[in-house]
Amino acid sequence: MKVLIAIDSFKGSISSVEGSEAISLGIKDIYPEAEIVTLPLADGGEGTVEALVQATGGKLVKKVVLGPLKEKVEAMYGILGDGKTAVIEVAEACGLPLVPSNQRNPFLTTTYGVGELISDAIEKGCREFVIGLGGSATNDAGVGMLQALGFRFLNLHDEEVGLGAESLLSIRKIDLSHVHAKLKECSFKVACDVNNPLYGPDGAAFIFGPQKGATPDMVKQLDKGLEHFAEIVLDELGTDIHNIEGAGAAGGLGAAFSGFLHADLQSGIELVLKIIEMEKNMQGVDFVVTGEGKLDGQTSMGKAPLGVAHLAQKYEIPVVALAGGVTEETAALNELGITSYFSIMNAPMTLEEAMDSKVTYNNLRSTTNQLFRLLQAVRTGVKK
Amino acid sequence: MKVLIAIDSFKGSISSVEGSEAISLGIKDIYPEAEIVTLPLADGGEGTVEALVQATGGKLVKKVVLGPLKEKVEAMYGILGDGKTAVIEVAEACGLPLVPSNQRNPFLTTTYGVGELISDAIEKGCREFVIGLGGSATNDAGVGMLQALGFRFLNLHDEEVGLGAESLLSIRKIDLSHVHAKLKECSFKVACDVNNPLYGPDGAAFIFGPQKGATPDMVKQLDKGLEHFAEIVLDELGTDIHNIEGAGAAGGLGAAFSGFLHADLQSGIELVLKIIEMEKNMQGVDFVVTGEGKLDGQTSMGKAPLGVAHLAQKYEIPVVALAGGVTEETAALNELGITSYFSIMNAPMTLEEAMDSKVTYNNLRSTTNQLFRLLQAVRTGVKK
Repeated sequence: MKVLIAIDSFKGSISSVEGSEAISLGIKDIYPEAEIVTLPLADGGEGTVEALVQATGGKLVKKVVLGPLKEKVEAMYGILGDGKTAVIEVAEACGLPLVPSNQRNPFLTTTYGVGELISDAIEKGCREFVIGLGGSATNDAGVGMLQALGFRFLNLHDEEVGLGAESLLSIRKIDLSHVHAKLKECSFKVACDVNNPLYGPDGAAFIFGPQKGATPDMVKQLDKGLEHFAEIVLDELGTDIHNIEGAGAAGGLGAAFSGFLHADLQSGIELVLKIIEMEKNMQGVDFVVTGEGKLDGQTSMGKAPLGVAHLAQKYEIPVVALAGGVTEETAALNELGITSYFSIMNAPMTLEEAMDSKVTYNNLRSTTNQLFRLLQAVRTGVKK
Repeated sequence: MKVLIAIDSFKGSISSVEGSEAISLGIKDIYPEAEIVTLPLADGGEGTVEALVQATGGKLVKKVVLGPLKEKVEAMYGILGDGKTAVIEVAEACGLPLVPSNQRNPFLTTTYGVGELISDAIEKGCREFVIGLGGSATNDAGVGMLQALGFRFLNLHDEEVGLGAESLLSIRKIDLSHVHAKLKECSFKVACDVNNPLYGPDGAAFIFGPQKGATPDMVKQLDKGLEHFAEIVLDELGTDIHNIEGAGAAGGLGAAFSGFLHADLQSGIELVLKIIEMEKNMQGVDFVVTGEGKLDGQTSMGKAPLGVAHLAQKYEIPVVALAGGVTEETAALNELGITSYFSIMNAPMTLEEAMDSKVTYNNLRSTTNQLFRLLQAVRTGVKK
């Protein structure tokens, strides 16, 4: 009996690593000899660094950088087991949680710290980059990040513009003469699950600006800044950074990664699955256990468990998905490789009770335990 | 694929029949050709009449009788498919729910109506009786029931005593000359899951009197009445009605059934399982699905799903138990024949939401559906 455990974190309750342990114990209670492979899962969002570092035997690095409000923050990123791939979640350096609600203002916030993390990783020998977009407090089209990497954005007077989206409209020229020398040796893979263009009604400002603190008037101004910046880039470098699926992700960071760093933007879960070599790890597996906090319609739009199920389906391996909550919409997942899904709730309880990490741990273990008891009874042919 | 569905009602939410339908649909979604045998289950308590009538293709009978407060009440009992076995829950004729809280007084309440139901069933041709004790509002040692069947209890002046426990102390003689003539052709099986003697510190008055409205002083008086009655019965008939396990059930009805009607007192679920021929119905079955509202430590003390599991274990048939709630104590059931148990909760919710019959129905169906999807994947050997 070989089982692959690949769950996302149960956000707000338990990490992927802890949850996997609970599931593993639930299996071992029934199959003490089972071979269990655990691959912490992530979808490119929160928890991706931790999951990939765990999965590859890498390490975590801490670095003080300029935060979204230009204050110093300690940000964490990961270097994978290969020693040359850095994994960075941009939210660590410019995330919304770093900005108190009453100070949220996407005119001012900058992605400068993201560039500092990349620079630090380059110094440490990394040349491959895996970037998780999402959760940013910014709308600066990634200009701050590029500034930290030596790109110079000049105004009418050939002076460097300041940090934050408020400076976008004053940019007239781009100077590449000081760009970090090693950057051309680097390649970037960006996990991005939105396909918004840079500006316009579906762009970064209109779609994501309000949740970052922009009023309707500010949104319009921010959108103009993005459009202006795209025009300058097209004029100066001949690169279209607007019409790229995902250009508008993370306040335009998607555009910067794609247009300036030649990044490949792709689905977060597919990127993660490649990095942890999920397909290779599935060989010879009898069962896959996957899961996340809530398994609903959203999951069917490309989240982690579905990515796992999709691969397992290719090899005809049964997949059990465990979640805190499932809905009627979850049934759609049965067609997409998830053999069966179960809520781990053991009784009526409030969401708060259900989110308690001990409750989640115990329920993951006992639900797995009962499922594998049943599998054992059927497999050993108690009754054919 | 042959599946036996045998669930108790999910009390306060859904009947055994409705719940079985939901489970059946969950199975048919996956195995449209499955042979499904449904046996509504009960443990001798509330719902036993309905379950046994359903299981045997019998019928329900309504009869107006004297209620616990000597008022008229409409009581229901069942005649099983064989046409000669009556199933009577005593609570229908003398139950606590029939007495408003402020009128609860076990000195006054009588079991007379139980005797009327028996008498009615005898008139309708029944000679076999299955009696569910429990839930009575009385403490009359079953004297009321016996009076309705022609037993005469006389005082010092050779006059018949009145109804209710208050008359027990005045009984001096027992006259059998007017007992219902056909009673000697009848045999009684009584479902009784308590083992209290008739009187004394573990007897009917001390243990069950308070919940029927007796004050501590009343309890002592009631206990004296039961003890006196037992002495008269021993003197007059040579029968010990005190030292019988279950004599104290239902305010001493256990003693009356045993001592006067030669009834066999036994575990409710075992009795029910015999009547619905559970063992015979299990032959050739691949899976058993059982369940009840809450599957906890109490269940392991002889409730319905455990009785089913016990039999299934004998034939090595896997048993899945479904419940609204399970606890850590439920794990003990794994040793007692329940292969696996699952809560049907699909997400955090309040008890009130969980008890909604539609929610229970849908969750029973979808949990069953997901379980049988998994079984199918394993049985068809998607991956051995």
